[in-house]
Amino acid sequence: MTDRFAIVPIGVIDKQGDTMAVRIYDAFADGLLGLDQHSHIILTTWFHKNDGSEKRQTLQVHPRGDRRNPLTGVFATRSPVRPNLLALFVCKVLSIEGNRIFIDPIEAFDGSPVIDIKPYIPRIDAIPEATGPAWREKE
Amino acid sequence: MTDRFAIVPIGVIDKQGDTMAVRIYDAFADGLLGLDQHSHIILTTWFHKNDGSEKRQTLQVHPRGDRRNPLTGVFATRSPVRPNLLALFVCKVLSIEGNRIFIDPIEAFDGSPVIDIKPYIPRIDAIPEATGPAWREKE
Repeated sequence: MTDRFAIVPIGVIDKQGDTMAVRIYDAFADGLLGLDQHSHIILTTWFHKNDGSEKRQTLQVHPRGDRRNPLTGVFATRSPVRPNLLALFVCKVLSIEGNRIFIDPIEAFDGSPVIDIKPYIPRIDAIPEATGPAWREKE
Repeated sequence: MTDRFAIVPIGVIDKQGDTMAVRIYDAFADGLLGLDQHSHIILTTWFHKNDGSEKRQTLQVHPRGDRRNPLTGVFATRSPVRPNLLALFVCKVLSIEGNRIFIDPIEAFDGSPVIDIKPYIPRIDAIPEATGPAWREKE
């Protein structure tokens, strides 16, 4: 059985030119049943390029590496530098073909491990009126 | 250094009566800098009650254990039964006091390990027009 707090990749990001897909491994494909009824998903991937490095110990950054952005705690950013290397994207589903979920392109690398997929549920996930700091508007 | 695909809890859910807080461990508290400028966060916790069990191998469920809901792949549900035990909540921040983020109550147990916090950014996270299956409306 899987160790406590161990993450098991369930798939991988496939990027070919402008086309992006989430390819789910065969062993997990049964978990996709019914996903085609959702227009959007919440996708969690792993920032594998920062794995095993000291970046997991960094707790404050200048967002997007831009020193004009104030020094900010990583939990107040979407930075790929953080204790747990979880990336989160709300994605529009274009189509699902077999084990592959075609999505509108996101800022993820080809080969990024896929950790979880959840349906996007506007009643609990959509907060258009949420507010944040002024510097973020310039991103 | 942390192992590949290993998750490190950064804090814990503190529930006292109707009051709910995310308590961040001292070692990670520097990561909170600037979070007080956000009205909402995306909170990732660990479904620790399902750890080390066969539940991590279940790929299809009747959502909320209600057999009137169609058999559905776990990636099309928010079920606590899934290969990687990540729970995701969009939370309203009430206040931040030291290491504690007071939030509007969510469906998480007291003592749930906290894995990640991200700022909620409406431009990329709010999709009010997202659609899903009809049975979900009854949840």
